[in-house]
Amino acid sequence: MARWQPGTRERLQSVSLHLFAEQGFERTTVAEIAAAAEVTERTFFRHFDDKREVLFAGQEDFVAMFLDPIVAAPDSTPTLELVSRALEGTAALFTDERRAWSRMRQPIIEAEPSLRERELGKLATLTVRIGEALQERGIGEPGATLAAEMTVTVFHLSFQQWIAPGEDRSLQALTRERLDALTALVAPSPNGRTGRS
Amino acid sequence: MARWQPGTRERLQSVSLHLFAEQGFERTTVAEIAAAAEVTERTFFRHFDDKREVLFAGQEDFVAMFLDPIVAAPDSTPTLELVSRALEGTAALFTDERRAWSRMRQPIIEAEPSLRERELGKLATLTVRIGEALQERGIGEPGATLAAEMTVTVFHLSFQQWIAPGEDRSLQALTRERLDALTALVAPSPNGRTGRS
Repeated sequence: MARWQPGTRERLQSVSLHLFAEQGFERTTVAEIAAAAEVTERTFFRHFDDKREVLFAGQEDFVAMFLDPIVAAPDSTPTLELVSRALEGTAALFTDERRAWSRMRQPIIEAEPSLRERELGKLATLTVRIGEALQERGIGEPGATLAAEMTVTVFHLSFQQWIAPGEDRSLQALTRERLDALTALVAPSPNGRTGRS
Repeated sequence: MARWQPGTRERLQSVSLHLFAEQGFERTTVAEIAAAAEVTERTFFRHFDDKREVLFAGQEDFVAMFLDPIVAAPDSTPTLELVSRALEGTAALFTDERRAWSRMRQPIIEAEPSLRERELGKLATLTVRIGEALQERGIGEPGATLAAEMTVTVFHLSFQQWIAPGEDRSLQALTRERLDALTALVAPSPNGRTGRS
């Protein structure tokens, strides 16, 4: 077999996910994954440090997807608009083609406490990084952390809905809906009272 | 020794917390706690199911503290006002007298993954219960869940600050500050643009 092929990484990911789903994450070995993908274990380890990395690869891209629009926005951009731009960035990664992968990945994560903890840690790190990026723009506390929490909450709830059975709206549309609901909740309504969503 | 004394429960909690802090949660046995509190193990188990319960007793009171004001509010109460009332309810439980206990409890929770998971589960349950209470008032989705997430986020961030070293403001004051920051973040400013916090 070839030592390096285009698409090997993607095949390893796909094969891993199917094995994890069928027989559980813990019970699946790298040897099995490599065999099913028709590569050597060495090839597997050229792409991933361990089988867990198959599920969590691309963490930096994930974080950058939120941070890049915050860093790139003009100086005067209001905080809520920064949140909105950060959330819009997610549409680039979580495309409709990716939805099947995300749908299959979720129950694997939820079935295994150590993976659940890693997933929560991923979101916690994201929150910290967004908070730092907002502070670097001169946004004070507690506003920066609240805005970061809000961003990740809206993302997380939108993502959960995006992978719900039967859901076919885009992540962008679901995110927009949730951000609008949040705004409606907090913003004073035209008659001057706080709005009821 | 007496089989039942007023203050036994509180003494068991205080003794447990000190032992957990000194020698770690896992390494502390119920026998040690009982001995240090000068009661029998049977007395311990009359108050708590296990040593973990010492740290998590009162979960229902904790949830009720948020839910009662939501249930009691008049029909026309706007969602943000419900969130605000739910948060104000926390001041009754987390008084200044309780701050030392909360400060001592936190590093014990953080040092032990199973306690951390239980603590996160507690907040997740709280979020679900608040979301349900809001839905029962006729608030639709995704607004109800977002408002619930917002409530728990504001509580959690305020609580973290409340137990920070040197902090002496009340939980109520810290909660109000964070809720105001969130409102400022989302609400349009007077000139019609979204506000920068």
